[in-house]
Amino acid sequence: MVNETMLQLGVKRNGIRELFEYGLRQAAIVGRENVFDYSLGNPSIPAPPEVNENLVDIIRNTDSLAVHGYTPAFGLPDARETVAAELGERYGVKLRGANLFFTCGAAPGLVATIRALNLGGSEFIAIAPFFPEYRPFAESNGAKLVVVPADIPDFQINWEALAARISERTQGVIINTPNNPSGVIYTRETLERLAALLTEKSAELGHPIFLIADEPYRERAYDDAEVPFIPSIYPNTIVCYSYSKSLSLPGERIGYVCVPDWVEDSAAVYAAIAGAARASGHVCAPALFQRVVARCAYSRPDVKAYDENRALLYGALTSYGYECVKPNGAFYMFVKAPGGDSQAFSDKAKEKNLLLVPGNDFGVPEYFRISTCVSPDMIRLSLPAFKALIEEF
Amino acid sequence: MVNETMLQLGVKRNGIRELFEYGLRQAAIVGRENVFDYSLGNPSIPAPPEVNENLVDIIRNTDSLAVHGYTPAFGLPDARETVAAELGERYGVKLRGANLFFTCGAAPGLVATIRALNLGGSEFIAIAPFFPEYRPFAESNGAKLVVVPADIPDFQINWEALAARISERTQGVIINTPNNPSGVIYTRETLERLAALLTEKSAELGHPIFLIADEPYRERAYDDAEVPFIPSIYPNTIVCYSYSKSLSLPGERIGYVCVPDWVEDSAAVYAAIAGAARASGHVCAPALFQRVVARCAYSRPDVKAYDENRALLYGALTSYGYECVKPNGAFYMFVKAPGGDSQAFSDKAKEKNLLLVPGNDFGVPEYFRISTCVSPDMIRLSLPAFKALIEEF
Repeated sequence: MVNETMLQLGVKRNGIRELFEYGLRQAAIVGRENVFDYSLGNPSIPAPPEVNENLVDIIRNTDSLAVHGYTPAFGLPDARETVAAELGERYGVKLRGANLFFTCGAAPGLVATIRALNLGGSEFIAIAPFFPEYRPFAESNGAKLVVVPADIPDFQINWEALAARISERTQGVIINTPNNPSGVIYTRETLERLAALLTEKSAELGHPIFLIADEPYRERAYDDAEVPFIPSIYPNTIVCYSYSKSLSLPGERIGYVCVPDWVEDSAAVYAAIAGAARASGHVCAPALFQRVVARCAYSRPDVKAYDENRALLYGALTSYGYECVKPNGAFYMFVKAPGGDSQAFSDKAKEKNLLLVPGNDFGVPEYFRISTCVSPDMIRLSLPAFKALIEEF
Repeated sequence: MVNETMLQLGVKRNGIRELFEYGLRQAAIVGRENVFDYSLGNPSIPAPPEVNENLVDIIRNTDSLAVHGYTPAFGLPDARETVAAELGERYGVKLRGANLFFTCGAAPGLVATIRALNLGGSEFIAIAPFFPEYRPFAESNGAKLVVVPADIPDFQINWEALAARISERTQGVIINTPNNPSGVIYTRETLERLAALLTEKSAELGHPIFLIADEPYRERAYDDAEVPFIPSIYPNTIVCYSYSKSLSLPGERIGYVCVPDWVEDSAAVYAAIAGAARASGHVCAPALFQRVVARCAYSRPDVKAYDENRALLYGALTSYGYECVKPNGAFYMFVKAPGGDSQAFSDKAKEKNLLLVPGNDFGVPEYFRISTCVSPDMIRLSLPAFKALIEEF
């Protein structure tokens, strides 16, 4: 009576959210201060003040019909120009407003990109650890997700495995750097080697392999780590961006897809993405927030609080004996589960009201994810549980 | 290199928007006051003042992390409850928050519903005149759109044609009342007869045929015309709603899908819609606007200005000899093209800088659409052109 794939997508609970909801129930029983919830990747620092100031100013001082009216499907021309100009300036490249297509966040941008490039059963490669939703984004739209196992323990790229998985059906490689869940940023060296491999393979296959860069964490870097602008390294890069993390606006659904002019056949790629968005019911990205992000194009997130959490957690956990690559981006830590089975470890942690996300869905069952967008007080209170757990295993 | 269907969807211009853009170019040449643009269905009356007041109040007085944070995929529990309670109260039915799934407007709600019900090549029936995007919504998602020709000149339903088009592959019938482009509201009698037919055919086929009610114009009725609540007439109704027209928020992308408890297997239908939304990259509807529409659940649009335009245009055009059903809803008039070919008539009108949308894409090539959300001054200035045109034909 209903489509079975869609039904399963709707019924099958998201493990992370399930864990979060368990935490809420448990808090009601044992008290909020006794539940150490590291499950969700929700920004814990509010939007910079200029976001709300501009929101109010736009509402108060712009014609209401214009503010809330339809925009072109690709976005407000002015907003596109402003955002493109800032990006071009920041990375020393030539971008035009016409290279951007505003979307309701990165997720529908990724779906539109996959649908635009899917020739029917095409393959898209995800490199573990990867955001679990890539699977339904590809597989429920007629494409195939091919997973490259993780490069443990550094979480750069397992080159042999990647090379072996590129086939004539490969249309795209999806990367996410700074990475959720590892917190690792692909180095310039990694990206250059990736570009070389994809260039070589594209030539071999006689068709371009696109790099799909999922970049909601682009501005979340610590220790002055470089976050290279990927289209400058590999020309056939399509960027899917979201303001969810950079401006702490995850619920407002605002982001863009960027198809630079130097992408092969860029006009067709852009048009196909626009068409795929239309096929999913995209009309325009939220109009008010298109204006806001343009006004805040030069705003940068406050990463200090996350950085302090990172230092506190990384220092404590490694001192107890946990193994973990030091994250230099995003707001996660990806820790090796003592015993090697993150599901078992996470279940054990749950008994101590310590909520850790097992790495299975990210493609790395030996590791668990910690979200560092939490309160420092919670971190301090949770440390004895971490210590006790590793001693038990 | 890219998907051909998506490319065509992105490349093929929307005729209405093309006409609108032509009008802008022409205005630069002959002067804005000399272009009579009836092309777009953009509300011309701003959002009720409480919308902007509540927006500012929420931004100013609610915790910023909460305001802009992720909501559950189905929407904020409180907002769902409020909207469901108001609907239930208004129509004397029992609706729960859990029956609603907030979406980025009606379009992605329709796509999610079609994808949820599409068993692979399933058929969805649209009744002419119909919103042209139904075609890509169905056909680019693996379903088939089957068109029932219009019931001319009343634009209710051509019963024989509808009955003949229902097959074992029919999963849904999409209706849009008050209707774009005819401005007609399906009468209670029409809806009851439709319910009887679908009930009979469902029994015959052994599976439910769902009624998919696309209702952005629900609150746009004139002359105290009744807009019946369709789920009260046909149980297997799924409502796709948008606040674009009722609160003049078309650019903000906020609406919902409503699956009442009395829909057959409603939990599975709801879950499949949620899954299909996820497959299109839906994360949540814009969070700020979920709160706003809940606060404005009892707001009603000001239909007076549109009503005056309707009276002015209907009176003048019929006095010149144009044939047109008197619209009692939405903000359009659907007029028979003198000569019977709306494309030819519209081309001729364009020479007089009178921009009318030919009915071809709506499935009725003999009629053209006029949008009545325009300024009364423009209407008055345009009347001589209408008069001259019918005399020429």
